[in-house]
Amino acid sequence: MTDKAVEDWWTTSIIRMEPGVIEFRGHPIQELIGAVSFPQMIWLMLRSDQPSEGQAKLLEAALVASVDHGPQAPSIATARMAITCGVGLNNAMGSAVNVLGDVHGGAGEQLVELFERIDAAGGVPAVPEVLAAFRAEQGKFVPGYGHRFHKDGDPRAPRLLALVDDLVVQGEISGRFAAIARAIEAELARGRSRGVPMNIDGATAVIFAELGFPAPLARGIFCLSRSVGILAHAWEQKQQGGRNKGPMPPSYLWTYRDD
Amino acid sequence: MTDKAVEDWWTTSIIRMEPGVIEFRGHPIQELIGAVSFPQMIWLMLRSDQPSEGQAKLLEAALVASVDHGPQAPSIATARMAITCGVGLNNAMGSAVNVLGDVHGGAGEQLVELFERIDAAGGVPAVPEVLAAFRAEQGKFVPGYGHRFHKDGDPRAPRLLALVDDLVVQGEISGRFAAIARAIEAELARGRSRGVPMNIDGATAVIFAELGFPAPLARGIFCLSRSVGILAHAWEQKQQGGRNKGPMPPSYLWTYRDD
Amino acid sequence: MTDKAVEDWWTTSIIRMEPGVIEFRGHPIQELIGAVSFPQMIWLMLRSDQPSEGQAKLLEAALVASVDHGPQAPSIATARMAITCGVGLNNAMGSAVNVLGDVHGGAGEQLVELFERIDAAGGVPAVPEVLAAFRAEQGKFVPGYGHRFHKDGDPRAPRLLALVDDLVVQGEISGRFAAIARAIEAELARGRSRGVPMNIDGATAVIFAELGFPAPLARGIFCLSRSVGILAHAWEQKQQGGRNKGPMPPSYLWTYRDD
Amino acid sequence: MTDKAVEDWWTTSIIRMEPGVIEFRGHPIQELIGAVSFPQMIWLMLRSDQPSEGQAKLLEAALVASVDHGPQAPSIATARMAITCGVGLNNAMGSAVNVLGDVHGGAGEQLVELFERIDAAGGVPAVPEVLAAFRAEQGKFVPGYGHRFHKDGDPRAPRLLALVDDLVVQGEISGRFAAIARAIEAELARGRSRGVPMNIDGATAVIFAELGFPAPLARGIFCLSRSVGILAHAWEQKQQGGRNKGPMPPSYLWTYRDD
Repeated sequence: MTDKAVEDWWTTSIIRMEPGVIEFRGHPIQELIGAVSFPQMIWLMLRSDQPSEGQAKLLEAALVASVDHGPQAPSIATARMAITCGVGLNNAMGSAVNVLGDVHGGAGEQLVELFERIDAAGGVPAVPEVLAAFRAEQGKFVPGYGHRFHKDGDPRAPRLLALVDDLVVQGEISGRFAAIARAIEAELARGRSRGVPMNIDGATAVIFAELGFPAPLARGIFCLSRSVGILAHAWEQKQQGGRNKGPMPPSYLWTYRDD
Repeated sequence: MTDKAVEDWWTTSIIRMEPGVIEFRGHPIQELIGAVSFPQMIWLMLRSDQPSEGQAKLLEAALVASVDHGPQAPSIATARMAITCGVGLNNAMGSAVNVLGDVHGGAGEQLVELFERIDAAGGVPAVPEVLAAFRAEQGKFVPGYGHRFHKDGDPRAPRLLALVDDLVVQGEISGRFAAIARAIEAELARGRSRGVPMNIDGATAVIFAELGFPAPLARGIFCLSRSVGILAHAWEQKQQGGRNKGPMPPSYLWTYRDD
Repeated sequence: MTDKAVEDWWTTSIIRMEPGVIEFRGHPIQELIGAVSFPQMIWLMLRSDQPSEGQAKLLEAALVASVDHGPQAPSIATARMAITCGVGLNNAMGSAVNVLGDVHGGAGEQLVELFERIDAAGGVPAVPEVLAAFRAEQGKFVPGYGHRFHKDGDPRAPRLLALVDDLVVQGEISGRFAAIARAIEAELARGRSRGVPMNIDGATAVIFAELGFPAPLARGIFCLSRSVGILAHAWEQKQQGGRNKGPMPPSYLWTYRDD
Repeated sequence: MTDKAVEDWWTTSIIRMEPGVIEFRGHPIQELIGAVSFPQMIWLMLRSDQPSEGQAKLLEAALVASVDHGPQAPSIATARMAITCGVGLNNAMGSAVNVLGDVHGGAGEQLVELFERIDAAGGVPAVPEVLAAFRAEQGKFVPGYGHRFHKDGDPRAPRLLALVDDLVVQGEISGRFAAIARAIEAELARGRSRGVPMNIDGATAVIFAELGFPAPLARGIFCLSRSVGILAHAWEQKQQGGRNKGPMPPSYLWTYRDD
């Protein structure tokens, strides 16, 4: 006989198993395979409700949009270097996903929190005041706006927002977080010759907020998406070869500064 | 001016960028968002070709099928414990994906290699001989067959194989790896009262081989799929709370063996 | 020719290299090998100054004291499970060190910060006020005091504090953080039938503060120490064998709660 | 009452605990603190025997020698980039230690295995034959010999070997692995104008073999040592600042190759 306290220690509402039986939130796995899309499965695993077709498509767009930003991103460089050190693809992914921290992977989460705060304060009319308070607390930089590389605009953001707008028209999401996001953008541009346009993190934060995901899952879902780019680059590097790839060609040596 | 040797050090065929431009294997990101499914995007990132609709759906089924096998899986337990230690979702994912090694995440890769070896030796007729050689080298256990928990059959495998068969009928995949896989199953059952049925790793290995993915990507794609369960469990644990969750309830202490 | 901007991107004051030359903070490696202890080398790497013999011994005591707290600690369980998944010792260590987060590995860092705050406010006389403010902000629990398992006292703390006291007598450290730590202990015991004695994190925080390490290095050095236990348990598990070790014996299954 | 099968699931011979009691391999922790050096503690955790003073010092020399090889090493670059992504020191360490795989951290392990094979075949006289067989199987490159940067010799190796020789003279180690290592070096130099001198991995492999550590612990102990450099560089980078540090200065972009 087993001790129920031990089994309870690992209680979950996600998955039920018996020999020959695997159910996710009440759905037998064999009824899900071939019937739900991967984004729908992601939704089912993370929440107890289920998305409409349109909502699942919007989540899918966010997943597609964030897969990669190239080898200058530290997560991607990490994955590529890792694979040349003789570890497996799973390890390259482990080291790389791990660095999607507050700075590299947290902007969406921080912005969903800000959206929620503004929403709780009354929505669009509250933007100037809440935004000013946010910047007084946390500094001038607002997560999800501006891009150090795509200075005139991140090509992913307008496309994602267009999809959001479509779904608002179809009545499947409220649109109030998109409105807040645009009001923030307008507020950031006020009195400046050049705006600070929404970037990928801003646009996906709108999507996550519209779909009702809690803020921390903005980061979590981003990690799922970026894992694709991490894997792709690790695999490409594996095929390129190399041993103990450093950040610079071997002819380079770092500068030593005698403090 | 920049040194081209440094730029070449990070050469990639996956992504091209300029300010305002992000292209994946020649496709501008804004043309992919909303147009391709997440599995299609995964395929595009990992390979230079593109799947048919049916092939993408089959990949999607494999992605859906492998998301989770519950808290007794070490990867899931790791993620749940990690989150109670005060690290982020990305870190819980990092520690957990990392352990999808040869034993926990490598069966599909090993089986695709065996499939390829049998295929190169002539396919189904070569199964008895190549399988015997494989088992002589690597031990009796054949990856992708049998399950220590689902002893009478893994409910995911038949459903996945049915989808494979559908696509063979549609002429989109050859079916020769499915045939090899079934021949292995028959060979393993020969002279036994009870067979060793294909499990999830076996069925997804068939899919990856039929779709032309090289063996190491069987593991890589499995990591993408299992990351979903890892994230879901980390997030559920976060909501359940707990601090420094150990593997057993706190009333338990390990056995000390005085060697 | 190389671009100096690239070399400067990786500027460090820790290590200088030329072919045949490796120097750490100005010391050729061959003059350090066999001449400095491992704790002295750790000190040299983390700081630009060098410890006295007694200071190095005190750091060594902290390193020795924190190596392990058994398989109920999530980091240790993670390492043991990881190794059964078919990854290397380095990967088991990676997954495990990674979870030494704010809750599992951060108490020392948090307490050094509190010590510094009390010290800046005038030291021991400021304890009641600063401690009250700290608890008002952060909750009743004070990091470094009390232990959920060693309820009547952590056996490591008194021994470490005795070594601190010895070094104060020898005039090599000031003793003011030890005094603050004891004043906190007294304050926590005030009006209670049973005190909340300093634990290992409390005692090592005293050591790190007395030795002048900034707060974040309390966590960093703890990670170095606990890595030893992580490696030892991973290695022992490797010798014990097992495949995909879950948190409970295989006869156990988690409780499914239908939400 | 608890189920003993659950407690046995986590059986260990490393640590025994009761409230107020922590013992490592039979030694109460308070008797170890202040009495044993950190290397002695590492030895005690990894093995059931205890080193002589001289043996512990030799292990210490290996631990000191391997702490760092600068930011061109992928593990160090990973740690430095990680910290700029907004993760903790423990996470930077986790991502970085993780990549000390077969290529970056495995040379010592591979060489100890070769030493053991030569030793089993009769020692020094067997070097030419076993070495030829090893190279026929695994390629020309012999782990632990030659260095792509320190072409005329790794400054760490002669110093470490001198310490090995001292301990042989004192009768504390046999010296037979040092002899094998030198015979390999001579064999590699035979008929060449320029030798392939032993490097740090070669010299520490001699130490681990002479001290009786099994081959996998050559990698494990290396990970403990390199963790120091990883932490030091993560911490230095933290103080230098930076956000999402890529491998090249931001003015650089990777080369896109249109396949």
